[in-house]
Amino acid sequence: MEIIGTVQEMKGFSSQVRRAGKTIAFVPTMGYFHEGHLDLMREGRRRGDVLVISLFVNPTQFGPKEDFKSYPRDFERDKKMAEGVGVDILFAPETSDMYPPDHQTIVRVEKVTQNLCGRSRPTHFQGVTTVVLMLFEIVMPDVAIFGEKDYQQLATIQQMVKDLHMSVEVLGMPTVREADGLAMSSRNTYLLPDERKAALSLYRSLQRAKELLQKGERKTDWILREMNGILRSESLVRIDYIQICDAHTLKDVDGIEGDVVVALAAYLGKTRLIDNLVYRKPT
Amino acid sequence: MEIIGTVQEMKGFSSQVRRAGKTIAFVPTMGYFHEGHLDLMREGRRRGDVLVISLFVNPTQFGPKEDFKSYPRDFERDKKMAEGVGVDILFAPETSDMYPPDHQTIVRVEKVTQNLCGRSRPTHFQGVTTVVLMLFEIVMPDVAIFGEKDYQQLATIQQMVKDLHMSVEVLGMPTVREADGLAMSSRNTYLLPDERKAALSLYRSLQRAKELLQKGERKTDWILREMNGILRSESLVRIDYIQICDAHTLKDVDGIEGDVVVALAAYLGKTRLIDNLVYRKPT
Repeated sequence: MEIIGTVQEMKGFSSQVRRAGKTIAFVPTMGYFHEGHLDLMREGRRRGDVLVISLFVNPTQFGPKEDFKSYPRDFERDKKMAEGVGVDILFAPETSDMYPPDHQTIVRVEKVTQNLCGRSRPTHFQGVTTVVLMLFEIVMPDVAIFGEKDYQQLATIQQMVKDLHMSVEVLGMPTVREADGLAMSSRNTYLLPDERKAALSLYRSLQRAKELLQKGERKTDWILREMNGILRSESLVRIDYIQICDAHTLKDVDGIEGDVVVALAAYLGKTRLIDNLVYRKPT
Repeated sequence: MEIIGTVQEMKGFSSQVRRAGKTIAFVPTMGYFHEGHLDLMREGRRRGDVLVISLFVNPTQFGPKEDFKSYPRDFERDKKMAEGVGVDILFAPETSDMYPPDHQTIVRVEKVTQNLCGRSRPTHFQGVTTVVLMLFEIVMPDVAIFGEKDYQQLATIQQMVKDLHMSVEVLGMPTVREADGLAMSSRNTYLLPDERKAALSLYRSLQRAKELLQKGERKTDWILREMNGILRSESLVRIDYIQICDAHTLKDVDGIEGDVVVALAAYLGKTRLIDNLVYRKPT
């Protein structure tokens, strides 16, 4: 595995690979890897001749009161883990290289970012789409792989790529979970033992939603009431949102007809966790 | 010359050319060609193995009260003119193909778009940067060529390409003028004979600024007063702005030290014309 530290060198490498007629698979990350990241990398390994991952804690996707400074980092550990799953290139640029002092361009996806996390994190997704477009320009991937755990992020990037007629294929991979069901997240490391236990109620509430959907329940208010009940039984959980949305537009739905995503965000102490369940209309 | 009418076909063509190791030069246009356009195309002919031009009157760069509907169009004439200067591909997409109904992604350059035309046309440049980025993704050019007549547009696109780490080279070409000095513009066709005569004062005022700068005048207020005097002597001219700005940031300057652009916009009846003069610090 080679480590590339500058935008210029990465662009040079990518254009050489493309000129040689080889394909590039790309997994953008903010580091502090867990099995979820490794799963994306393994899929990347299968999808491209060359597997590039980026490790960049992107400041523009954090709000002013969010955890940019404390976001967990461990470069040496990440390096070994990436090497272990066969990554070819680890691209780890400096912030000043990605965003020089006069940087002033923003990429915004307007509709699909309004609901869910977009409500409590109003500038988050424009930070994500701006940096992902920049990374796509630098890495020039044929395919880029994201986790479905960040469902709205995935939908937003897919919308951006479609709207801007970009040539990269954007692939979503199912959420990887701990043995007890908690969705893997680099932020799980913030949780105190009691919070870790209480956090399982997020998964339990989604499982209850799945059960109801599979039994044929089609009224969202009933499903949401059940989920609320499960989360409220844990005093350490503070709900940010629980919503059932159209899986493509991410607008709230009243009754369940097409594909939907049941999505939630909740605080455990200062730690904000998200999770979701995609329910596809049985065909 | 081949005409390509769909985004999909254009992308297929471009990736084939790139895979074959050939370079693409690109001139994006809104059609109704004059010598200024042809000059950009001739430069493109010299710069790339394959010369692609686009002809697309982009609705998102027109304000609600602007001339999108009446913007002059003559596809048959444009086709012949493009063929005459050796264009390989004329890409002329449908609006619904470029902007499908759920299109919702916007590319914005924040600072360099605030002054000058950005004041009177607040959504103009985000329409320009969005469509130009889309066209770059579709056409995949090595070099793209724009006229310096639209100086703020050129500066904005150069900033976007730099900020987003895009691989295309953006080249500006000097303004092409009529025999008497009026900057060529597709909108000159709107001018009534009296307005056409009065419009020459735009060029005369820029010539006066050049004279003063070359004589060593360094106070912008004096230069602007002289220019104002020339334009106000024409009763048909209504000034939108006359400003002297840093040639890179496009912020107003008081005294002239580095490279500057003297830029103006004025109405002749309903027709809004722009022109400018770039004055580079003698070295």
